Amino acid sequence: MNRLAASRRRPSVFGIDFLCLGCLLLSLAFVACTEVPADSAGSEAALPVAAPPGPAWAIAIHGGAGVIERDLPEAEKQAYVTALTSALTLGRDALDRGERSVDVVEKVVRFLEDAPQFNAGKGAVFTHQGKHELDAAIMDGETLEAGAVTGVSTVKNPISLARLVLEKSPHVLLAGAGAEAFADDMGVERVGDQYFFVKRRYDAWQRALAREKAEGEQRLGLDSGDKSTDESDDKHGTVGAVALDRDGHLAAATSTGGLTNKRWGRVGDVPIVGAGTYANDAACAVSGTGIGEKFIRHTVAVDIAALVGYGHLPLAEAARVVIEEKLEPGDGGVITVDRTGAIAMVFNTPGMFRGAADADGRFEIAIWNDP
Amino acid sequence: MNRLAASRRRPSVFGIDFLCLGCLLLSLAFVACTEVPADSAGSEAALPVAAPPGPAWAIAIHGGAGVIERDLPEAEKQAYVTALTSALTLGRDALDRGERSVDVVEKVVRFLEDAPQFNAGKGAVFTHQGKHELDAAIMDGETLEAGAVTGVSTVKNPISLARLVLEKSPHVLLAGAGAEAFADDMGVERVGDQYFFVKRRYDAWQRALAREKAEGEQRLGLDSGDKSTDESDDKHGTVGAVALDRDGHLAAATSTGGLTNKRWGRVGDVPIVGAGTYANDAACAVSGTGIGEKFIRHTVAVDIAALVGYGHLPLAEAARVVIEEKLEPGDGGVITVDRTGAIAMVFNTPGMFRGAADADGRFEIAIWNDP
Repeated sequence: MNRLAASRRRPSVFGIDFLCLGCLLLSLAFVACTEVPADSAGSEAALPVAAPPGPAWAIAIHGGAGVIERDLPEAEKQAYVTALTSALTLGRDALDRGERSVDVVEKVVRFLEDAPQFNAGKGAVFTHQGKHELDAAIMDGETLEAGAVTGVSTVKNPISLARLVLEKSPHVLLAGAGAEAFADDMGVERVGDQYFFVKRRYDAWQRALAREKAEGEQRLGLDSGDKSTDESDDKHGTVGAVALDRDGHLAAATSTGGLTNKRWGRVGDVPIVGAGTYANDAACAVSGTGIGEKFIRHTVAVDIAALVGYGHLPLAEAARVVIEEKLEPGDGGVITVDRTGAIAMVFNTPGMFRGAADADGRFEIAIWNDP
Repeated sequence: MNRLAASRRRPSVFGIDFLCLGCLLLSLAFVACTEVPADSAGSEAALPVAAPPGPAWAIAIHGGAGVIERDLPEAEKQAYVTALTSALTLGRDALDRGERSVDVVEKVVRFLEDAPQFNAGKGAVFTHQGKHELDAAIMDGETLEAGAVTGVSTVKNPISLARLVLEKSPHVLLAGAGAEAFADDMGVERVGDQYFFVKRRYDAWQRALAREKAEGEQRLGLDSGDKSTDESDDKHGTVGAVALDRDGHLAAATSTGGLTNKRWGRVGDVPIVGAGTYANDAACAVSGTGIGEKFIRHTVAVDIAALVGYGHLPLAEAARVVIEEKLEPGDGGVITVDRTGAIAMVFNTPGMFRGAADADGRFEIAIWNDP
């Protein structure tokens, strides 16, 4: 904690604190670099020198980071684990068959949207007005093409609408009624408001309304000192997936219902390329979950990629620097994979629903830091 | 052009092409770094070694990049130059008085929103439905706080609403009807649709509709091969400002009407932190203008900052790499300033309306590459 506090006092936002470390690493990289034939000084040169060959494919998934109580009822815990296991199996099998990473992350996030445990698709939180406004984004690391939607309310699977934005429109991000009109044009599956209903989310919204009434309209969200389990839990639950496929291409996808009791058409980090979602074959693929505003201001996803691509940090260290040193405890977490198949899953909350698998037989689901 | 074409064939998205150059630069930086006392190894360490002291403050502004004909009628050219000169004078005087950069960029962009020449505020382009949907963002490089709005249609000065999002809400980005509701709560100045009307923009919209009708509904924007002056000109015209103040703090602000004939609630790069707008005291402040989708996919603004902060490139070189090597000719341009007061204004279009001033007496307005 002291280290975190100290780092916040210094203007270390761009990792300048790590300059000397970076210089050391890069002096080493320079030596390595001179040994690489000139015509192969492309993206491979950024990978660790003499690294053993990584797995042929890799995938990580998340179902949100936040205050997840250790005394979570066993049945509830099992429901999470079952949903995550099914999603990870779906992704593992698809990658093993040789499917493209951008297809796989869409498929996996679609599954997690349909699972009522998570704050995305079915099970999304309620807005201030008692509606559901969903955000999603997908990015293809090979082409840097991306598609995203924000504030959709009738689309069963926002991630697939985001994919259609990527494939069928000249745009990246479509909002609100306009995104709904695009959904009309694309003929995607629509649902009524009741489809998204989950009693736990409704109750959380009612509690948020009651708190707001008690405390006055001023207290509108992040600035509150109230870090009750209720509220923190409601803020997290975003789902996401990142994958490396057999062809060496990366992709990321994220989907969320956003904040309980959100208002004013608030857009979080999920549909913002570089904040909650990012993929670039030259660096890594990232999907985030947490307090969206912090992720936007710190451009979390692309900052991790830049620390890998320009700062030449190993993936796990890049993710650690951003989550532990630039964000504050409780802000959230990320899953990320690079083109060596390395996976990092880093969070500064008590827990993060997550899973990881790769071609070398790794297959794990976890919630807290220890099993 | 050969160089550009070559760089696009390689996966050079994260500047991995520059690894060897980076290694060389960083080997030099390493030597410099070891000479810096440990307690000053903060953000100053990233600045050029032994650089002469820069100007006490600096500002750059833009009024859009695009196809700006050399035979622009003299009266029209003078109107642009007059508006840019007034905006730059406003910023120069405010910075000279010691005003904060975040206040100055808001003030300057507000002025440019009110000028009918530019595609922001009064003079904004028409959407497919004949409306105006305005986007704006502002970011404070000292705190990384940011505020942005997208799709507002009744707010006279979107940049000031974005500033209120920064100051008065816990959020970063508000969209559409929600942003309008926030404007209600804040009591900002509202205008009717006719306020934004400028005949040139109306005519451009009518031409776009006619083209669309002639060519069928498929041709919806970026993917068109049609690079007519009309269309290209209509796509550009965003306004922005970046500034360094006497206290050493950076800020950026950008405002736009987006694309002529846009539909589906399309959100461009302007309100996306890291794409069209970014400021970070540890690196630089950036405001972009051009094809928003390209700026989002390439996270243009934060990529320049990362090349400065992690890649240790000089500002002008960082901006050049991103605009000339990652984007394609015709995509747009940026203005950027770092904490030494260095200014770079780089574009890959025939022209960019722009201006720059600093405490050392620089004061210039330009449109094309040569005067």
